[in-house]
Amino acid sequence: MKIKVVRRVLDVNEKMAQDNRAFFSENQVFVLNVMSSPGSGKTMILEKTLPLLIPDIRPAVIVGDICTTNDADRLATTGAPVVQVNTDEFGGDCHLAAHVIEKAVANIDLAAIDLLIVENVGNLVCPAEFDIGEDARAVVISVTEGEDKPVKYPLMFRKCDVALLNKVDLLPYLEYDLRLILENIHQVHPDMPIFEISASKEQGFDPWITWLKNRVKQKQIGA
Amino acid sequence: MKIKVVRRVLDVNEKMAQDNRAFFSENQVFVLNVMSSPGSGKTMILEKTLPLLIPDIRPAVIVGDICTTNDADRLATTGAPVVQVNTDEFGGDCHLAAHVIEKAVANIDLAAIDLLIVENVGNLVCPAEFDIGEDARAVVISVTEGEDKPVKYPLMFRKCDVALLNKVDLLPYLEYDLRLILENIHQVHPDMPIFEISASKEQGFDPWITWLKNRVKQKQIGA
Repeated sequence: MKIKVVRRVLDVNEKMAQDNRAFFSENQVFVLNVMSSPGSGKTMILEKTLPLLIPDIRPAVIVGDICTTNDADRLATTGAPVVQVNTDEFGGDCHLAAHVIEKAVANIDLAAIDLLIVENVGNLVCPAEFDIGEDARAVVISVTEGEDKPVKYPLMFRKCDVALLNKVDLLPYLEYDLRLILENIHQVHPDMPIFEISASKEQGFDPWITWLKNRVKQKQIGA
Repeated sequence: MKIKVVRRVLDVNEKMAQDNRAFFSENQVFVLNVMSSPGSGKTMILEKTLPLLIPDIRPAVIVGDICTTNDADRLATTGAPVVQVNTDEFGGDCHLAAHVIEKAVANIDLAAIDLLIVENVGNLVCPAEFDIGEDARAVVISVTEGEDKPVKYPLMFRKCDVALLNKVDLLPYLEYDLRLILENIHQVHPDMPIFEISASKEQGFDPWITWLKNRVKQKQIGA
């Protein structure tokens, strides 16, 4: 019974996601859906990423949380337009669904941006199931979370286009097998680009910024 | 529409959770539901906790994961009976529901144990909504996840009886405000006991083990 119900919700979502995708394409806006566990560092990565994009790329951000506007407040200091979505207004949802994105986008002037980044609710499970009309998906995983997460949460890693391995500055203090995490990611998603970064120390951002800028520009030229 | 559907699933779950709770009480088994984000250290905490309980307390563990038996394999080395539940057989659920626990418990000899620990799916959102018939709930949060999680995921912290603040051995290498995390936890759940531990270094376990043993014994004497 439950699975049938979930299927119906996902079908409705899929239709709305396609509408979002068409709308974003009309406006030549590239959309990146950023997902991770709580505390993997999504917000700090975006705090450090946005200034490296501006003015070459004009970004905006939709931030999803169950409640609070903490993350939006942090990101607003970058100068990029930021819209906070609190899912407790939608039943405390553990993910952002396509209809929520549609409503949030109404607050953003798409003609004035090239890139819309969606910081999803912190959850390594459910957000992977909900297409929001994005062009690409990034998963953030920090080295403090252990090496086994890709095989335990394979859907997330399979559905994402790029992985950011965060907090590598802590590697000297952890028993962590860097080769194993890379292997585990590639076991569920062969050839996925993985960028090793430290958001707090602003290390390793160049390849990530290059990847993101290239993706945005490819969409603009219709590649 | 969706909220109504979710409500119905939760109603069905609540009824089954009450059945579980009655069954556990008949068998004088104390049930602890352990929840956290992926990678907060639930499994390692249990690896270190079980040997400190045995033989005084006879524990068993149900481990929930979407897939893999990694965690069950790790816990089986403690000698305690371990049952792995893979929710991908139940539609890839992001939480353990009461009916899943009911099925898993059929594989455990309740007469031979005092304590059943349920290691829930790594997810700081959905498991908080599903009563499984437990006596107490523990939330694990690691210091690498930042200080803001209790206010961003308040339901989890409100519904739990005890918090384990893990990975405190990493504090020297983090910009982390220990006073702030304690304040944030107590903001959403005043007076919740919080135990600061390091599972990897086996530090700070005494107060936690004492708390857990007391709770198990209180149930046995019907306090």
